[in-house]
Amino acid sequence: MLSNILKHFSSTVRHYRFASTSSCYTTKFSYRQYLVSDLSNANLIDTSVSVYGWLQHRRKKLFGVLRDHSGLIQFILPISMKEQRTILEKTPFESCIHVKGILKKRPERDINTDMTLGHLEIHVTDYKVINACLPELPVNITKYHESHEITRLKYRYLDFRRDVMQERIRFRSSFIAKVREFLLKHSFVDIETPSLFRRTPGGAREFIVPTHLNEGGLFYALAQSPQQFKQLLMVGGFDRYFQIAKCFRDETGRPDRQPEFTQIDLELSFVSRENIFSLVEQLVVACWPEKLEKVSFPRLTFAEAMSRYGTDKPDTRFGLEIEHSSEQLSITSPIPINNANDLIDGDNDIKYDANNRKFLLNKTNNEQECLIKMGKFRLNLADVLEKHYGIELRKRRQWNFLWIIDFPLFTPMEDDRTKFESTHHPFTAPINEHVSLLSSKKDWPHITGQHYDLVLNGFEVAGGSIRIYDSSIQRFVLNDVLQLPIEHLEHLLQALEYGAPPHGGIALGLDRLLALVLETEHIRDVIAFPKTGNGKDLMAQAPSLVEQSELDYYFLQINRKHS
Amino acid sequence: MLSNILKHFSSTVRHYRFASTSSCYTTKFSYRQYLVSDLSNANLIDTSVSVYGWLQHRRKKLFGVLRDHSGLIQFILPISMKEQRTILEKTPFESCIHVKGILKKRPERDINTDMTLGHLEIHVTDYKVINACLPELPVNITKYHESHEITRLKYRYLDFRRDVMQERIRFRSSFIAKVREFLLKHSFVDIETPSLFRRTPGGAREFIVPTHLNEGGLFYALAQSPQQFKQLLMVGGFDRYFQIAKCFRDETGRPDRQPEFTQIDLELSFVSRENIFSLVEQLVVACWPEKLEKVSFPRLTFAEAMSRYGTDKPDTRFGLEIEHSSEQLSITSPIPINNANDLIDGDNDIKYDANNRKFLLNKTNNEQECLIKMGKFRLNLADVLEKHYGIELRKRRQWNFLWIIDFPLFTPMEDDRTKFESTHHPFTAPINEHVSLLSSKKDWPHITGQHYDLVLNGFEVAGGSIRIYDSSIQRFVLNDVLQLPIEHLEHLLQALEYGAPPHGGIALGLDRLLALVLETEHIRDVIAFPKTGNGKDLMAQAPSLVEQSELDYYFLQINRKHS
Repeated sequence: MLSNILKHFSSTVRHYRFASTSSCYTTKFSYRQYLVSDLSNANLIDTSVSVYGWLQHRRKKLFGVLRDHSGLIQFILPISMKEQRTILEKTPFESCIHVKGILKKRPERDINTDMTLGHLEIHVTDYKVINACLPELPVNITKYHESHEITRLKYRYLDFRRDVMQERIRFRSSFIAKVREFLLKHSFVDIETPSLFRRTPGGAREFIVPTHLNEGGLFYALAQSPQQFKQLLMVGGFDRYFQIAKCFRDETGRPDRQPEFTQIDLELSFVSRENIFSLVEQLVVACWPEKLEKVSFPRLTFAEAMSRYGTDKPDTRFGLEIEHSSEQLSITSPIPINNANDLIDGDNDIKYDANNRKFLLNKTNNEQECLIKMGKFRLNLADVLEKHYGIELRKRRQWNFLWIIDFPLFTPMEDDRTKFESTHHPFTAPINEHVSLLSSKKDWPHITGQHYDLVLNGFEVAGGSIRIYDSSIQRFVLNDVLQLPIEHLEHLLQALEYGAPPHGGIALGLDRLLALVLETEHIRDVIAFPKTGNGKDLMAQAPSLVEQSELDYYFLQINRKHS
Repeated sequence: MLSNILKHFSSTVRHYRFASTSSCYTTKFSYRQYLVSDLSNANLIDTSVSVYGWLQHRRKKLFGVLRDHSGLIQFILPISMKEQRTILEKTPFESCIHVKGILKKRPERDINTDMTLGHLEIHVTDYKVINACLPELPVNITKYHESHEITRLKYRYLDFRRDVMQERIRFRSSFIAKVREFLLKHSFVDIETPSLFRRTPGGAREFIVPTHLNEGGLFYALAQSPQQFKQLLMVGGFDRYFQIAKCFRDETGRPDRQPEFTQIDLELSFVSRENIFSLVEQLVVACWPEKLEKVSFPRLTFAEAMSRYGTDKPDTRFGLEIEHSSEQLSITSPIPINNANDLIDGDNDIKYDANNRKFLLNKTNNEQECLIKMGKFRLNLADVLEKHYGIELRKRRQWNFLWIIDFPLFTPMEDDRTKFESTHHPFTAPINEHVSLLSSKKDWPHITGQHYDLVLNGFEVAGGSIRIYDSSIQRFVLNDVLQLPIEHLEHLLQALEYGAPPHGGIALGLDRLLALVLETEHIRDVIAFPKTGNGKDLMAQAPSLVEQSELDYYFLQINRKHS
């Protein structure tokens, strides 16, 4: 029974640990003598050892199991310790305890092979409850089943005690450490840029932060990325910048987004797209927890990705590619589908041709929309084939990276197709061969930008570009092509006039990357204190009301008339 | 003339570089072949080399000097390159340029000993202007004189091109890298905690961030420190946490503060004060740019610091200690002071006794206030002795660290001395011997807390404490002693009930620490993009007005009636 429980705790805890740590480093600066994992040292057998941790399990007055993040160790209270045996019997699980005693090998017949230290036990000479736990835990911390996410978020500090959460958060730390190590080795400079910045009209919605300055009405915006700062650093001669950057976007209501998220942000001077590809590929390989020897980083143009997969972030772990005929798009199922109508799910445009196992969509005027529709259908079909037909299309721990390149620099606006917006952002440079096309409006839709996305298993995990470094081109793009106000960008435009070097960069979405590496469903599972999909901190109950005096200080009042 | 200019650029740039970097790492992932410093490799002499950088200097059509962050190299255009010589003559300083040519040793008589690579020059085969600079620079980037700080902040991207700014920002990166290296080696886990948090009533003023949720009225607060999160991580079993944490406080108007600043934030389970002292001392020694072999970390109680220096952050690089007699406080000057009244500066309480060279202050009822007055006077006296009497009291690169310990846990409130506030914060534990004093109100002023500050040369560079981990004591302190509302802390109080381990920690003020190490006047000089003393970003003009539609989205309107 006990061994069954322990089974679930024995294997994974230290699986991803960055490096094995000696007892010297793990317990220095503490009155704790050993971590549990330190007890594997054969020299300690038959010596007195002292450990601190949590009561994971106990049986009657007889023995218990102490857990710390490094492992589990059984301890036995001798019959002579009457008083302490009574205390043990009443110690609630998850109480913080101290155990001191002689480390012994277990008799051969009692060895628990499911536990890393199942061959050892402590014969207790002192047992203390440091801080008792309430008898009822609101969160299940065993592996048997996971509590509902709402409960886990509310009691995050208990959720952390689960092996899988220890593993994820510790892995995140070691992954970031490897990223830094790689970048510092390659002469990147770690530079912190401000979060309190100026509102950038257009683009994603930024949080605003009121100030007391100037009798009210002035606001910072929380920076949605260090984009401007990193370009200014290039102008300033910091030719290799990186930052593990906290970014903010007010995206309340997008279920797998967070109002604050983390990017591995990079920028270099004197680089080409090829240089960036090479850098990111080597960075990923260097930091991945597994050897990625056989992994390749193929490239696909935006046009080809759309044509074959109906998306700019295709999951290439499986085929089911879109076939084109003069009048129709189709996807062929590898096997016959029984309830094809359920799969199509009320979409009257897609038809199933049972004879040929083909799902067909007639091309309409807007081919792009048809492709996107087929791209979404392709993913649905894959789900159905896996769930209901047992066809494994997407293997675990299979990594299909893909660079998407050659995006159009400008995209016609939906409501007025004679006007243009940046496909990504207005600082992206056109490819050199297309700079001359800027001079003629009719050529604008045909200009290819030097933007690139890195896709992994159907998720965009990084995006970047070679930037415009010529101020006249940058002004032309902002003023003439995009017709944007430029007042708030005047400092960047000016900076380009002072001998700005050619430069480019990329930002990797750390949360999404970690969620993929650790195969978790939500990015929330790789963030220590995430908010819910609608931006709430369920533990501390944020956001919350503030006192009127706070609002007065910022010359604000609530006004529900508008919305 | 040229050598004079170059003199100022030759020595310091790479002074603080973390480690020497080979050309493999510095130019990998770039089309740049070499950094200037790579050219010191003797194997490159008489080979063709290509470098990119900025035009630092030129003389007529003949030669120029190219700069990158690693150094300076002279290049010479042969008479045959007529066209390119004309281009050089017209290239504005600070333009981004490309120089290709044969690396040559200079003739013995032409060696510039003030320049690291003064024995080398490039005989140009190709010279290109990559991006011309405007002919007039708004910021002086030579060492001769520093532009006004307002100009430097507005054109921060040009200010960065100065050696001293390259050095500071690069030093910051390498210092942080060493901190991380030390902490990761000692099993600390790097954990990001949220910036968007819940408003904490009392304490420093926090920025508030409106949300669209719930039809308005709900706000995040920008976390002023990760205090609560790191304690919750301890409850969760992450026994060693650290974070280079961005913190936010709305302290507009405090001249050497920033609305966002950076802390090296630490927390450990199963630690004593002694453990923390040992950890921080070894961390500081490991990361300092100089060997700190002879540096000690003495300790002074709060009471003794006040009594001898009139402050809880004494600068112990010099004496001038406060002497106590039954009726008077005094400080003896080492030499006679001529214009003592100027020094006292209108303060009628302090008298000068010329015969004994003593500055005297009569003790009044409030001895604490008298001590603080003498503490301030002591610093003024030191300034005067240094400036006007040439007595060097405070040497450069002298590091006087000092732990201040044994602060009172509670301080009577100014306006009602029967009420108490926390001397630091309500999570600080009393020393073990004083826990029992909590039960009697008359003993509260006499309870010593387990708070500690680290002082360096008269500045507080770190502060922390051993925390309360018993929920009933924490509730008692909040409810009974401090009489604070606890609704917003309920999650923390609950967390302590689930087997919280004993824990403690500290936060080091990174900006201040770096300003001291680099001996800069303001913390602004060690921050890449600082704001002014009143919170303005002079480069991007933040904070700024936002559109009414923005405010409407957050159900807000400006109201200047209150203030």
